[in-house]
Amino acid sequence: MENFEFCIGVNILFGKDQVENLPSVLSPYGKKVLLCYGGGSIKRIGLYDKIKDLLSDYEVYELSGIAPNPKIDSVREGVKLCREHGIDCILPVGGGSVIDCAKAIAAAVYYNGDPWQMILEQKPIEKALPIVTILTLAATGSEANSGAVISNPATNEKLGLGAPVLMPKASIMDPTYTFTVPAKQTAAACADIMSHLMEQYFVPKSSYMGDLLVEAVMKTIIKYAPVAAKEPDNYEARAQIMWGSSIGDNATLCNGNMLAVFGVHGMEHELSAHYDLTHGVGLAILTPAWMKYVIQKSPEVVIPRFAHFAKAVWGLEGENDSVLANNAIKAIENFFKTLELPQTLTEVGIDSSRFAEIAEHAHRTEMLEHAWIPLNAEDVISIFRMCL
Amino acid sequence: MENFEFCIGVNILFGKDQVENLPSVLSPYGKKVLLCYGGGSIKRIGLYDKIKDLLSDYEVYELSGIAPNPKIDSVREGVKLCREHGIDCILPVGGGSVIDCAKAIAAAVYYNGDPWQMILEQKPIEKALPIVTILTLAATGSEANSGAVISNPATNEKLGLGAPVLMPKASIMDPTYTFTVPAKQTAAACADIMSHLMEQYFVPKSSYMGDLLVEAVMKTIIKYAPVAAKEPDNYEARAQIMWGSSIGDNATLCNGNMLAVFGVHGMEHELSAHYDLTHGVGLAILTPAWMKYVIQKSPEVVIPRFAHFAKAVWGLEGENDSVLANNAIKAIENFFKTLELPQTLTEVGIDSSRFAEIAEHAHRTEMLEHAWIPLNAEDVISIFRMCL
Repeated sequence: MENFEFCIGVNILFGKDQVENLPSVLSPYGKKVLLCYGGGSIKRIGLYDKIKDLLSDYEVYELSGIAPNPKIDSVREGVKLCREHGIDCILPVGGGSVIDCAKAIAAAVYYNGDPWQMILEQKPIEKALPIVTILTLAATGSEANSGAVISNPATNEKLGLGAPVLMPKASIMDPTYTFTVPAKQTAAACADIMSHLMEQYFVPKSSYMGDLLVEAVMKTIIKYAPVAAKEPDNYEARAQIMWGSSIGDNATLCNGNMLAVFGVHGMEHELSAHYDLTHGVGLAILTPAWMKYVIQKSPEVVIPRFAHFAKAVWGLEGENDSVLANNAIKAIENFFKTLELPQTLTEVGIDSSRFAEIAEHAHRTEMLEHAWIPLNAEDVISIFRMCL
Repeated sequence: MENFEFCIGVNILFGKDQVENLPSVLSPYGKKVLLCYGGGSIKRIGLYDKIKDLLSDYEVYELSGIAPNPKIDSVREGVKLCREHGIDCILPVGGGSVIDCAKAIAAAVYYNGDPWQMILEQKPIEKALPIVTILTLAATGSEANSGAVISNPATNEKLGLGAPVLMPKASIMDPTYTFTVPAKQTAAACADIMSHLMEQYFVPKSSYMGDLLVEAVMKTIIKYAPVAAKEPDNYEARAQIMWGSSIGDNATLCNGNMLAVFGVHGMEHELSAHYDLTHGVGLAILTPAWMKYVIQKSPEVVIPRFAHFAKAVWGLEGENDSVLANNAIKAIENFFKTLELPQTLTEVGIDSSRFAEIAEHAHRTEMLEHAWIPLNAEDVISIFRMCL
C-alpha cells in the first residue's frame, strides 16, 4: 500500500425525505443562499417548491440553466450573483454538472480575476464559499468529493479543479429524486460510475483490499443499472447506484491507489469539450476501444489484469488468461449494449475530422502519459478511429 | 437500503513517516497538548522521543499507564490534567484503549461532575476537546469513529459513549508502528476486527453492496492476519489490517445497516468488565459458540445467512445450506485456532461461578434483545457454558 491522505468531511444525509433537514443543515453557514440548478427538472418533481418552502426564512437567490458539461459562463454568472448579494452559502440542486459549477463559483468568488483564468492557473485553492448539495442524478460522485470539471466552449477546453475546501459541507441524497431520470440518462450515468471504478482498478499498483472494494461496487452497478433503467422507481436500485456512485469516486475504495490518473476520462473530456457529448456516453464508447487497444499495446501487463477483472467482476471462468481478458471486454461491451448506450462515435455524429486536434489536446493534459498504459497522441487517434 | 447519516470527518494520514506532519496537523488546535499513552511501548519503538522532538514548540503534558479495557480512573486523571493546565488538544498515542480514554477525557472536561456519572447518564455530548491520534495497534477502529468504551472496575461495568464531536480531528496511521505488536496481541486484534465485521454482517436487513463491502474487508483480514502474526514486519499485511480495521468499524461499509447492535460485543464487554479479559480474546471464544447457539435457536433465519457467509467469505462450496452453515462455523473456529487464540473460557481462567450475574448485566444493556437473533439472559448463560 502507498501512503495516502484521506478525509471525506461531507456530512451525508441519505434516504427518503432527508430534505426536511435542509434548514438545520444550512443554518451554520448564514442566511443568504445561492440556489443553483439546471434545466428545471427540479421544478417538475416538486423539489424546487419544497426547497423554497423549507427556506422561507432564508434569502434565496437563483442561478438556473446550468448545462451538462457545465460552462464557464454559468460560473461567471454565479460569481457575479454571489458578490452582488453577499451570498453565504451555495446550494446546488442537481447532478454533477450543477454541483461542479457550484464548486467553481465557490472558489472563484475569492479569486481576483476571470474564473477561467483561475482554472487555467491551477494554483492551490485555499478559500471557498461553503457548499451544501441536494443530489438528483447519481453519476459523478461530486456530492462527496472535492473536484469539479468545467468546460469553455470558446476554447474547446474542459478542465478540472480540485481542493479540500471544495468538499461539500453536507449532501442530501434522496434516491426518490432520481426516479424521473430517463433510462438513457440513467444508462449514461452508470457508464460514468463504472468508468470511475475501472480507472481506479486498472492502475500500476493495486492492493488486495482496494481491489475487493472496487469490485464490490462494480458488481453493484452491474446488478442494479439495468434494473434502474427498466424500473425507474425501484428504490433499492436507485439507492444502491446513488451510494455506489458517491463512494466510487472519492478515496473511499482506492486506499493506496491515489495515483489513478483516469486516462479514459482524459480522452473523453477532450471529446466532450469539442462536441458537448454526454460524458457517460463518451465513456461507454471509448472504454471498450481503449481496452482493445491496450491489450494489443501491452499484453504482458494488460492480459493478466483483464483476466482477473473477468473472473472477479463478471464471474467468468476459464484457464486461458487471453480468452478471459477478451471476454471481459465483451462483457463490458455487452453491459453497455444492454443499457442501450451508443456504441460508436458515428452514432453520436462525430467523425474523424478533428481527431488529430482533439488527441493533441488530450495529450497535453499530461494525464495520458502517466496512465496505467501510457498513451501518446497517436495512440489516442487510433483509439478514436476504433470508435467510428 | 435504510436511511442513514454519514460523516467521517477525520483527516487520515496513512503510511510510513506520516508522523513528520504531526506539528502541522496539531497547529490549528493550540499549543497545550495532553499526550496520552499506555505501558510504554511507544518509548521502546522510539516514537515517544520522536514526538517530543517534533513538538518541541508545544507545551506537552502527559498521561501514561492507560491500561487495556481503559479504566475510569485514567479518565479522571486526564480530566484533572486538562483543567489544571488548560489543555487545548489531546494526543492519544496507542491502540483503541488509549484513544477511547482520550475521547472520554475530551468530553468529561466539559462535564460538571464525575466522568463515570457522565457515562452512566448517556446524555448527548455536545462539546469536547479536539483529539489527534497516532495509532500503534490496529484493532478497534477508534481512530476513525466517534465511539469509546470505558471500564469501571469498582462496579464491574464496561460502558460505551459516543458523539460526533468525539471523532478525531486527525489520525496518523503508520503501519510500521505495529511491527512490534506480539503475535498474540495481533491475533486478538484481528479477532476484534473480524467481530466488528461480522456484527455488521449478521443483521436483520442487509444490502447487496453493503454485504460485498464487508466481505471484502473480511477476506482481507482472513488473508493478512496469519501473515502479520508470523511476519511481524510485513508492511503490506500490517497496512491492510490497519486500514481494514479503520473502515471496518465506522459507517463506511454498512450503508443502510446502521442498526447493527454488536450483540457478541455486548456479551464480551460484560465478561471483560468482570475479568479484565483481552477484548479480542473474549470475542474469539464467544463468536463460534454464539454461532452454534443461534443456528439452533433460529435455524430458518440463521442457516441461509451462514451458508451465504460460507460461500462469499470462506470460498466454501456445496448445495446443502445446513452443511455450509456449519462449515462456516468450523472455518472461523479454525481461523482463530490458526492464530493461536484461546478457544475456551477455561483456558483464560474463567469458570461458571459468575455467569448468572454477568448474563444479567449483559442483558440489561438492551443490546442483546435488539440483536439479529434476540437473546435473553438465559441464552447468554447457555452460550457462556458452551465456552467452558
